[in-house]
Amino acid sequence: MSFKEDNKTIAALATGKGKSALAVIRISGIDAFKIVAKCLNPEKRFNNARPKSIHLYYLINSKTKKNIDEITAIKYVSPKSYTGENMVEIICHGNELIIDEIFSILFNNGIRFAKKGEFTRRAYLNGKIDLLKAESINQIIESSNKIQYKNAMEMFSGNNKHILLKWKKEILDILIEIDAEIEFPEEDDIIHKKKEYLKKIEYLSKIIREEIVKREKIKIIESGLIVPIIGIANAGKSSLFNLIIGFNRVIVHHEAGTTRDAISEEILIGDEKTKIIDTAGLNDSKNIVEILGIEKSWQYIKNSHLIIWVTPSDQEINKTEEKMLKEIDSQRTIAIISKNDLNTDKKKKNILEKIKIPYIETCLIKDDSKEKNKIINFLSQHIKKITDVNNAEPGIICNKRHEEIFIRINKKMNAILERAETNFEEILSYELKGILADLEEFIGETINDEILNSIFSEFCIGK
Amino acid sequence: MSFKEDNKTIAALATGKGKSALAVIRISGIDAFKIVAKCLNPEKRFNNARPKSIHLYYLINSKTKKNIDEITAIKYVSPKSYTGENMVEIICHGNELIIDEIFSILFNNGIRFAKKGEFTRRAYLNGKIDLLKAESINQIIESSNKIQYKNAMEMFSGNNKHILLKWKKEILDILIEIDAEIEFPEEDDIIHKKKEYLKKIEYLSKIIREEIVKREKIKIIESGLIVPIIGIANAGKSSLFNLIIGFNRVIVHHEAGTTRDAISEEILIGDEKTKIIDTAGLNDSKNIVEILGIEKSWQYIKNSHLIIWVTPSDQEINKTEEKMLKEIDSQRTIAIISKNDLNTDKKKKNILEKIKIPYIETCLIKDDSKEKNKIINFLSQHIKKITDVNNAEPGIICNKRHEEIFIRINKKMNAILERAETNFEEILSYELKGILADLEEFIGETINDEILNSIFSEFCIGK
Repeated sequence: MSFKEDNKTIAALATGKGKSALAVIRISGIDAFKIVAKCLNPEKRFNNARPKSIHLYYLINSKTKKNIDEITAIKYVSPKSYTGENMVEIICHGNELIIDEIFSILFNNGIRFAKKGEFTRRAYLNGKIDLLKAESINQIIESSNKIQYKNAMEMFSGNNKHILLKWKKEILDILIEIDAEIEFPEEDDIIHKKKEYLKKIEYLSKIIREEIVKREKIKIIESGLIVPIIGIANAGKSSLFNLIIGFNRVIVHHEAGTTRDAISEEILIGDEKTKIIDTAGLNDSKNIVEILGIEKSWQYIKNSHLIIWVTPSDQEINKTEEKMLKEIDSQRTIAIISKNDLNTDKKKKNILEKIKIPYIETCLIKDDSKEKNKIINFLSQHIKKITDVNNAEPGIICNKRHEEIFIRINKKMNAILERAETNFEEILSYELKGILADLEEFIGETINDEILNSIFSEFCIGK
Repeated sequence: MSFKEDNKTIAALATGKGKSALAVIRISGIDAFKIVAKCLNPEKRFNNARPKSIHLYYLINSKTKKNIDEITAIKYVSPKSYTGENMVEIICHGNELIIDEIFSILFNNGIRFAKKGEFTRRAYLNGKIDLLKAESINQIIESSNKIQYKNAMEMFSGNNKHILLKWKKEILDILIEIDAEIEFPEEDDIIHKKKEYLKKIEYLSKIIREEIVKREKIKIIESGLIVPIIGIANAGKSSLFNLIIGFNRVIVHHEAGTTRDAISEEILIGDEKTKIIDTAGLNDSKNIVEILGIEKSWQYIKNSHLIIWVTPSDQEINKTEEKMLKEIDSQRTIAIISKNDLNTDKKKKNILEKIKIPYIETCLIKDDSKEKNKIINFLSQHIKKITDVNNAEPGIICNKRHEEIFIRINKKMNAILERAETNFEEILSYELKGILADLEEFIGETINDEILNSIFSEFCIGK
């Protein structure tokens, strides 16, 4: 275990860095009052101060008695504090020289620097907050988009815990009945009950899946979308690339391309950071440089958020395209049938409709603003589909830990639903016990030091 | 006037930016309590809260009633607050999304964003602090070295004001006597009194000059020293440059040179950021590239903190060097007599001693670590002389305004001391009245809106 609990008094800067009017230094632990008192003038004012009342002091060097800064300080008496321990908040001027000086005085008096998340860890260990609330506090601070922040506030409020506890109870109820049934089978009722269980599991499974999808979308919003333009040579990929780039004036980042590398531009489509990539044509080639480019195109087919497949109307789907269609996920593929001036038969369109890939037909080389608008709208609309969580209800998954547990639960639910016909009761009992344990871990009812360490190491200093 | 006083309630972030455990939002003005109460839940808790006591709330959107963050808030009742007005400090989580949201709620309720230094300006206008204290608060926050911070704390404590008031009284006393003398001259006493006045003025003048020098040193420490190596061609400038750079492993910044530009390196000598410059030789030239380089050398002679003049022992001081010696300030020049193996006569040394330029003799091309140490020590010692204020007593000048006033006072004192023989009483009376006005301006006894605007525009937001 990398983190060893001790009961030392800890201190950390709780506010942002840089010159500013104010900065807050937090101190927590058994010696907090005794040590801080030595560093304040008048000391008596601090000793006599009511808990949770703020007063003005000079912070002094406890040895030289020199004034370091004029500060205000608040004391919080255990257990009525954030950590549950005795705590002091010192509000000084926001200058690094002063903050460094104050820390060096505190350290000389036996206080140590707090580790990441150590205040919240102590709050958790002292029973001031539960694990989900601790995690939500970190998430509130770390949120970089509104939906993350919404989720964190929902977790903070306790609503999510309430939902998880409700699920836990529902699963427990099924489990009790199932276990009874395994021991005392009552044949006549089983079909009806089985249906009922499956309905409940299906319902929960759907929510879990939706939460996982929501989480994926949030992750995409954060990192930006990867959108390659894929197709055989001369399908019109570069024309489409130039059209999209030309239309979107907000170029975020330009990356120069060579024949070997894919050419890409990072632009905003709607509100979303999107990297549009003009890939090498999916052809057979013996040229080493071209082969490398083509390999990269296949990688993009596997690893991207939305594939724009450009396919010319005047050629049938060839072997390479067939291979590609086997690789891609139709849920995240759209097609542009290019060169629609050359062919009007419906064969290609029929195939696309059959495999459920949305498409439009166009002629990319025409300078027609109506056509351009059509293409951009088509693209925007599908990008929005992938990322549209901003207006959604807040989700339950706030971080990687939650996500991993939900993925585990989802697998177990799938195992139940897939094998609903054979050995139903045994499977149900086995998997539901696993799900129950997962939920308990999520809520924080079963937790070990390793998990705790990994949770609090994600926190910022001073929290 | 660019700044218009109003009595609107103002708000600003008082702590540093970036994700952090906590952030403090300050609100000041007549409507502070009314508006903040609307945004807190439970509102009643805030309304009933004792002044200067901290309590926990949800900050809510006053329209949608949705929770934005869990915060703590302190109220300060006028006049017992920083500004002297009603004030609230909200301590929220340190995330931009949350802070933006809180501001947007406050603004929707009629609060406006505070201008730079507006809290302190209101404190000054409400008589909570005097001008020097206001300035010192800004200086405390903005200090980037210990001596600046020391000076600011001294000003904050009121000690400096005390000194300035003492000077003012002394000058006033002389002025009263002088004015009496002009009206009722008493011949027999005048010579004795004149001596006494001059002694006092000389004494004050010396302190003022010392303060100005201290200020100059602080400015140099902040920006780094400019130290050109100057001399005629083949004096050994580049050898010296390479010796210094080679000795000092801490290269701060490397700037590639051409024949035209001077070659320079930013290094640390002792604790001081120093830019050592290898300049073009001071020769006559008709080559346009060389002429430009030589012009630059002459500029460095005028604009630098310390000149290292390299002059070879085997050549007499030539016309160019003579011209150079007229331009330079011997107070900030040191000399290296190079090639001491070629000549041992004392002519050059005698000249240097006469014009009081410190020097050492050496042979720069010998690879002798003892010689190298000698040169580096010589250089370090003179750089330290220029910048050695860190261990000094704190000074009175904290900022540009103070500096300008001291320069004005210094000029007036010089005018008195220079013309001590002619029309003594009239000059003394005239200049002392000017000095008196300067001191009153420094202390803040006479101040106008323009000066106020310029003072507070230097402040950070939230102070």
